[in-house]
Amino acid sequence: MKSTLAFLFLLFLTPAALHAESGYNTWLRYAPLDNAASAKYREAVPSILAVFGTQAPVQSARQELTDGVRGMLGRNLRQESRLTGDSAIVLGTLDDLRKLAPQLSLAADLVPDAYWLKTVQRDGGTFTVITAQNDRGVLYGSFALLRKIAIGDPIINLDEKQTPGAAIRWVNHWDNIDGTIERGYGGPSIFWENGRLRESLDRVRDYGRMLASIGINGVSINNVNANTRFLEPELISQVRRVADTLRPWGVKVALSIDFSSPRSLGGLSTFDPLDPGVVAWWKSKVDEIYRAVPDLGGFVLKADSEGRLGPSAYKRTHADAANVIARALKPHGGFIFYRGFVYDNKMDWRNLKNDRARAADDNFRALEGSFDDNVVIQIKHGPIDFQVREPASPLFGTLQKTKSAIELQITQEYMGQARHLVFLVPMWKEALDFDMRVRDRRTPVKSLVSAFVGVSNVGMSESWFGNHMSQANLYGFGRLAWSPDLTSRQIVDEWTRLTFGNDPAAVETITGIQLTSWRTYENYTGPLGLQTLTDIVGNHYGVAVEASERNGWGQWHRADEQGVGMNRTAASGTGFIGQFSPGVARIYESLETCPDDLLLFMHHVPYTHVLHSGKSVIQHIYDSHYEGAETVAGYVRQWKALRGRVDDRRYDEVYAQLEYQAGQSIVWRDAVSNWFRQTSGIPDAQGRVGRHPGRIEAEAMSLSGYVARAVTPWEAASGQTAVECETATCTATLRYAGEPGWRDVIVQYFDVNNGVSRFRLWVGSQLMSEWIADDRVPTRRVDSSSSARRVIPGVALRPGDEIRIEGIPNGGETAALDYVEIAEAEN
Amino acid sequence: MKSTLAFLFLLFLTPAALHAESGYNTWLRYAPLDNAASAKYREAVPSILAVFGTQAPVQSARQELTDGVRGMLGRNLRQESRLTGDSAIVLGTLDDLRKLAPQLSLAADLVPDAYWLKTVQRDGGTFTVITAQNDRGVLYGSFALLRKIAIGDPIINLDEKQTPGAAIRWVNHWDNIDGTIERGYGGPSIFWENGRLRESLDRVRDYGRMLASIGINGVSINNVNANTRFLEPELISQVRRVADTLRPWGVKVALSIDFSSPRSLGGLSTFDPLDPGVVAWWKSKVDEIYRAVPDLGGFVLKADSEGRLGPSAYKRTHADAANVIARALKPHGGFIFYRGFVYDNKMDWRNLKNDRARAADDNFRALEGSFDDNVVIQIKHGPIDFQVREPASPLFGTLQKTKSAIELQITQEYMGQARHLVFLVPMWKEALDFDMRVRDRRTPVKSLVSAFVGVSNVGMSESWFGNHMSQANLYGFGRLAWSPDLTSRQIVDEWTRLTFGNDPAAVETITGIQLTSWRTYENYTGPLGLQTLTDIVGNHYGVAVEASERNGWGQWHRADEQGVGMNRTAASGTGFIGQFSPGVARIYESLETCPDDLLLFMHHVPYTHVLHSGKSVIQHIYDSHYEGAETVAGYVRQWKALRGRVDDRRYDEVYAQLEYQAGQSIVWRDAVSNWFRQTSGIPDAQGRVGRHPGRIEAEAMSLSGYVARAVTPWEAASGQTAVECETATCTATLRYAGEPGWRDVIVQYFDVNNGVSRFRLWVGSQLMSEWIADDRVPTRRVDSSSSARRVIPGVALRPGDEIRIEGIPNGGETAALDYVEIAEAEN
Repeated sequence: MKSTLAFLFLLFLTPAALHAESGYNTWLRYAPLDNAASAKYREAVPSILAVFGTQAPVQSARQELTDGVRGMLGRNLRQESRLTGDSAIVLGTLDDLRKLAPQLSLAADLVPDAYWLKTVQRDGGTFTVITAQNDRGVLYGSFALLRKIAIGDPIINLDEKQTPGAAIRWVNHWDNIDGTIERGYGGPSIFWENGRLRESLDRVRDYGRMLASIGINGVSINNVNANTRFLEPELISQVRRVADTLRPWGVKVALSIDFSSPRSLGGLSTFDPLDPGVVAWWKSKVDEIYRAVPDLGGFVLKADSEGRLGPSAYKRTHADAANVIARALKPHGGFIFYRGFVYDNKMDWRNLKNDRARAADDNFRALEGSFDDNVVIQIKHGPIDFQVREPASPLFGTLQKTKSAIELQITQEYMGQARHLVFLVPMWKEALDFDMRVRDRRTPVKSLVSAFVGVSNVGMSESWFGNHMSQANLYGFGRLAWSPDLTSRQIVDEWTRLTFGNDPAAVETITGIQLTSWRTYENYTGPLGLQTLTDIVGNHYGVAVEASERNGWGQWHRADEQGVGMNRTAASGTGFIGQFSPGVARIYESLETCPDDLLLFMHHVPYTHVLHSGKSVIQHIYDSHYEGAETVAGYVRQWKALRGRVDDRRYDEVYAQLEYQAGQSIVWRDAVSNWFRQTSGIPDAQGRVGRHPGRIEAEAMSLSGYVARAVTPWEAASGQTAVECETATCTATLRYAGEPGWRDVIVQYFDVNNGVSRFRLWVGSQLMSEWIADDRVPTRRVDSSSSARRVIPGVALRPGDEIRIEGIPNGGETAALDYVEIAEAEN
Repeated sequence: MKSTLAFLFLLFLTPAALHAESGYNTWLRYAPLDNAASAKYREAVPSILAVFGTQAPVQSARQELTDGVRGMLGRNLRQESRLTGDSAIVLGTLDDLRKLAPQLSLAADLVPDAYWLKTVQRDGGTFTVITAQNDRGVLYGSFALLRKIAIGDPIINLDEKQTPGAAIRWVNHWDNIDGTIERGYGGPSIFWENGRLRESLDRVRDYGRMLASIGINGVSINNVNANTRFLEPELISQVRRVADTLRPWGVKVALSIDFSSPRSLGGLSTFDPLDPGVVAWWKSKVDEIYRAVPDLGGFVLKADSEGRLGPSAYKRTHADAANVIARALKPHGGFIFYRGFVYDNKMDWRNLKNDRARAADDNFRALEGSFDDNVVIQIKHGPIDFQVREPASPLFGTLQKTKSAIELQITQEYMGQARHLVFLVPMWKEALDFDMRVRDRRTPVKSLVSAFVGVSNVGMSESWFGNHMSQANLYGFGRLAWSPDLTSRQIVDEWTRLTFGNDPAAVETITGIQLTSWRTYENYTGPLGLQTLTDIVGNHYGVAVEASERNGWGQWHRADEQGVGMNRTAASGTGFIGQFSPGVARIYESLETCPDDLLLFMHHVPYTHVLHSGKSVIQHIYDSHYEGAETVAGYVRQWKALRGRVDDRRYDEVYAQLEYQAGQSIVWRDAVSNWFRQTSGIPDAQGRVGRHPGRIEAEAMSLSGYVARAVTPWEAASGQTAVECETATCTATLRYAGEPGWRDVIVQYFDVNNGVSRFRLWVGSQLMSEWIADDRVPTRRVDSSSSARRVIPGVALRPGDEIRIEGIPNGGETAALDYVEIAEAEN
């Protein structure tokens, strides 16, 4: 049997280029072009690839061009190390080409990493030159040329210089040494497992390639909540292996460090940054690391935040803390990224002047100018914590003499955790393009930052990201860091063509869904600046409207019977708005000018407050939630039309994801709408909230074995109640009383992660559907995170039909049911 | 890690109907129809499925209709057991419907298994009735209705009666109890492993469904070279489990038996069929089996053939042997299939009158009339053994009073062993439609046989058959057995639409390839009735022109320096032609009228003999081989245009198969052409044979470590020679001397099954390709079966370039090379 299976396996791994679309190859698939396109490029691509220089990134570029042209055009480029009269693609740094190919007469003034694609005609030959100031730039230029071929851009008569938006374009990993990832939704760490580096670094190598293809030049490889072991000699030698693996892709390694290391690891009695012993320890430790990794990018430091030790232990400043390490790094050219994410998570919520949004600016404003020049203050794009809608952090405008980085979260912590499709580039662009009006001049955030940092979302899942569509977020982060002026549409159009091919219907549908997805998610989670109305002290995933209130974490929206929103005005509120420049503060301070999207972030208003749109706040809350859920249902319909236009595997997997999201968007819609309906006492003008034709609550059905239980929070279940099975098997039965016809039967049930219940649905004596509740959503509780649905489409129903659901609990899972809904069959 | 992988796995197994195209679901995929088609059928399909009768096959039909309509139309039929006024699909035997639904007024005269699809309008309702004389027919009718929906046939106003072409439509398995399959190319047995029945019979159940869908009503489940253990009580109880699993699909089980069982198993001193103790033993053994399996179909018996014991041991006749068992079966309604495949495999090849083709008729003619009426003589379709081209067996015409079955080999023993794509239906149809002119009347073979038997080709491979395209052979066998008048095109069109969908380009390409594939395979293996020129005493796979000669097996073609072909005339040859009726014999006997396709099967002629086509025999041999290989290359090109029109997985797998076949067809072309060129001394008028522009023999290259070795048979290697590596690493180097430009570099090497060599190809210092030789073709020898090729497409070459191949042997494999060929790059 074994040998036969091996036979079958091997039979199909014969010469043909297999292209199973697991998602592993992301946007670097180099899929064969169709005949028309490949004929065009075969003419334009010469047969020779002339490579000058032996630097590892240049060799990576050589290999990538060879592989890419082979994949897309079926042509094996000939690699030469000199120019003959024949046409060629020419690869090398500007210095090397001036020296070794002087006949090309190349001259340009380029910054590091920038590249130049230039067609040169000389002596009857055509030379497609890819050059740059450094070897990394040559690699970037090569990826750029391949991208042009893949998406159908011309590659003749090139003269294109591309300069990066910032010199530092890094990703951070929140990967723990045990292999788990804090806020990771794409599987375990690609770096770590069981307390050490993985044996095989194949994934790391492929990740380096992926990062290089979008211009990322650094990666920190351990969680900002850092384990001190990373500074131990054993770990340093493992870090060295990672650096050696990534170096050919022009990607530097950085480490997250713990500020108390001099004491906890070094055995000193203190970690006071001004203590001479501590100063010496940092210098010696940094020297030791640089002996192993001479091109280490530097460190990331989270101090005095969420329980991490910091300079406050010795009444020192953040500048004292940053500078002691910066000075150790300076001789080696390293940077320290000091996180601005410093706040008090035990604030008194009864004090209306308290405001977590103020914390970053409050902490760092006084220190402006006192940081060394290789310190970078790393600032989350908004003042809270990667919520669905926040203003840009005022600290970007505050720091002028101090270097700053914008931290964007690619992993979707508050944004659906890779279960919901949310394309983040439009959100990031709002932050980057936001005009801080520093000194009353046009100063968009992107002009103020020296570095881009993204919290990465990759893991060991086959598609890296846990789903296919989230790949666009890493791609978009890299492209934005390189070219902050690209539009969201340009980025997603590129990504879609590279990832799914150039079929026009597929491109239109996928770009359309991606571009509207952030607004859609906001619509059904937390509009008007309410922020993501999720369980902020728990899993950050499902809906829980009040979870942000009455605790010290400060993500308050302060909704009560009268009104909703945080008063952050300078005049009467927390004063947060006053942290912005006057030009910005003026706009936010006034209800007249504050944009609707941020209204409740900035102001507390009555539910009847009328928006610029003409709608009341409460009606907008209702409408946006219904609109959001309806849009996701539309995504499912649009996606179905792509069957056969994208490969089956990814079609199926994205379809399953969108179907799930459509169900969850209804859970969110109902929970938020009901909560605000209950709290405000104001009905929905359109009469939808609390009225669900065709819905039958499980607790209203005829139950055998099932017991009705209140759900917490109450808005997480329809009718505030679920039924749970406390015996071996339970049933819930209803009698259909509607018109005869084809119907979709929707069962809303609860699928927690510590058991695998079974369900069966019967109409009369006929088994219509059976399924198991084996999802692994992040909850053990019957709540909104575990709320799931089963759609049984196209059931013929007649009045009097008995519909019976049988549930069989397992483990900690009670085969709980919320409701059944009977709707006209779709299609 | 485990839990995360589980999470990812489960994430995607949510409600959406996944449709990974592994081939497992064959032609029963019930893939969703596109919107236009499904709208049409949703209107035509009523919401109710009214089922009358509780027989297991009727219940299978009920489930199948429910699943099929759900899969294709997204509608869940409501199952009822009575008629209301509402429109319904109505299911039941004619007897049951007359009794339980008299208002439908159904009346018809149907034979067993026949079905009737009938639309009845009554009282404002429309009733789509599926009925039959027996429950199996109801199941067949249900599959027929689903097939209509899948391929786009109308289902309104139906009035269609379908009657089977024969009452017995069986498949035979040559599965051994250890799990191997004699001539099986689709993986191990689905029934047996390690000396007993498999634990899980899920595959058997799904196989039963597959068989029912094409009207097969019986299956023998063990090799005709039978193990006596199958008549032991322990095995009988396992056979019972199989019968219980297949019964709901209307499929009966049969067993292959060993004629010496009374002695070897029963402990008698004899197995003489006329011995009273033997008679009693068979009766008692049969009674025992029928107690376990009351509806056993019967037995298959291979006696006095290829080493099996038979009645000749006691000088008894085949009729004596068959009848003793037939009489034991008779009370239970069972049949004995007595194989006509009886011949002497130790014939003297020097006697030109000896002829294996005569054997069946010689053995059975005298016994005509002496077989009981539940004996069926099972006759291979041709007189030899499933060769690429044979005439119909004359025995079909000889047996008039004796029941006969035509045995067709679905598994591709001499037909490329599922590595080559060969659609067998056109070949079978030639045999079935062949007019035997019995009593000088039109008597096609299909009118003479009482039963169809196919040697099945399924196994445990994911696609059942080891490749996707061979599925069409089982499908075609079943459809032909039911409707022998269907055309090959009708059958393959149905199969393609069911298996790959209705995309017009895909349907046209796949049907075109399938319909021409037999002729193509004949063209490059053995045209003009030469039969498959393979290693007939070895693996029956690769080319070995003389393997059939100078041995006792009698598959002689008698090619020598002067001429080629077996003289089977009545006048001067073996007399085989005289076994046919005079009307047929007249045609074959004369060179004037003998069809070209069978010329060398019937006559020995000089190479210069001119065919009806106007070509000489020798030129036809050359031309057909070049044409065959060229056609396969065209299949590859045609298939490439289907990228994106069939699902990626099957696209890739079929592409790899066709690429391999294209290489093998060149091996065949060159071997056969060179052999006949060498033997006949007559050159190819078109100058191709022995002339290969762009080909460089490995032995002519500059070798380091490689040693030239003669290959046996000599025609299996280009230049009769391969180079083999007898050290750790070897190289073969050549210098390119052609025009500069894009070239495909083809490396012909040998990939045996007892080692995994590695190869690398360099152009100058550039590594262009590396691969491993890990195929599992059926040979350990450097010969035509192991000859394989690696195509490195689109390599830019210039005169003077050095091309170097490095080979690293492993195990019994010597990294052997045949030649390198350099051709214009294909697009």
